[in-house]
Amino acid sequence: MNLPSKYLEEVVEHFASLPGIGKKTALRLVLNLLKRDEEELQQFAGSIQHLKANISSCETCGNITDAKLCSICLLPNRNKNIICVVEDIRDVMAIESTEQYFGTYHVLGGIISPMEGIGPNDLNISLLSERLKSNTVEEVILALPTSMEGDTTNFYLYRKISAFKVKITTLTRGVSVGTELHYADEITLGRSIVNRMPFELNFSQK
Amino acid sequence: MNLPSKYLEEVVEHFASLPGIGKKTALRLVLNLLKRDEEELQQFAGSIQHLKANISSCETCGNITDAKLCSICLLPNRNKNIICVVEDIRDVMAIESTEQYFGTYHVLGGIISPMEGIGPNDLNISLLSERLKSNTVEEVILALPTSMEGDTTNFYLYRKISAFKVKITTLTRGVSVGTELHYADEITLGRSIVNRMPFELNFSQK
Repeated sequence: MNLPSKYLEEVVEHFASLPGIGKKTALRLVLNLLKRDEEELQQFAGSIQHLKANISSCETCGNITDAKLCSICLLPNRNKNIICVVEDIRDVMAIESTEQYFGTYHVLGGIISPMEGIGPNDLNISLLSERLKSNTVEEVILALPTSMEGDTTNFYLYRKISAFKVKITTLTRGVSVGTELHYADEITLGRSIVNRMPFELNFSQK
Repeated sequence: MNLPSKYLEEVVEHFASLPGIGKKTALRLVLNLLKRDEEELQQFAGSIQHLKANISSCETCGNITDAKLCSICLLPNRNKNIICVVEDIRDVMAIESTEQYFGTYHVLGGIISPMEGIGPNDLNISLLSERLKSNTVEEVILALPTSMEGDTTNFYLYRKISAFKVKITTLTRGVSVGTELHYADEITLGRSIVNRMPFELNFSQK
């Protein structure tokens, strides 16, 4: 793509470095920005400029927050003895929106990925060990993605956590509620049938 | 979507204001930015900050440029008497990549869209009239999109340009090269057959 301006090329490169944004999309975004008011542009630029200074991680769980502790860790009615380990804050938001979980979280900020050069030390793992050292934690839920990287991270965490007296669980994987069986993918359906569970009337009616 | 930080919400809103970027995608982009070095972030922010100051429009055609005139207007071998009117620089790039056009361009910077509040005065139209006043221009090619807005803009330009002695043409619309007829959409195929052209051996072999 031969852009008519070197500076435009530079800005497009910045946008194209974002995940899922190709050069064509990046150009579309920058052309849109070019049509805006100077003031709006300055606000946009400023919001990126002060991003790291204004957003911090919760000192307990690594969730994003404006203060020292995140809004979830601050809630008095959350069970601090159950910790759900997730990849990033989008997973926290997804689980929160179910309104079915009342423990706390631990946000790793990524998963181990040798391909992308992300090792255990790049993740928020040492803070998790600190939390477990208090010996009050009863259960750690590993809620990481079912991918090669997710499995690697699960395995690494499992070995770390096993040193503590704590129940380690993971999310049930199975056919989605409302999905017709013949549309479910083989691996999911396979896990569903291998890990089948007792039929309970009140549960199935839910 | 309930974000755990007000500042994060602000940055996400900025990204979500870009075309084709929803709130979920915006959050993904911002989380990616959060993982970067401070220096990289400052460069990203700076590139947006100086966008308008560093990118200017070609004084002749409205194309984006680092200088007073764009690279195409500066080329000595381009036919200055043929002007191809396009919506934005992406169309210039698309036509340039065909290597089949040797005239110049006129970049409107948008099309008339009452729905989005874009009128003729918001577009680079007066500069086009100026160029036609020289009376050396022989042909204006209207290469705008085939949409309601494109048609409106075509009509508006047609009335403006008719005042000058100049040939007005538009792009041929038809079935794409390589497309099988039964896959072409009805409107395109309809136009192709209504505007059928003489069979020329050297053309059809190309």
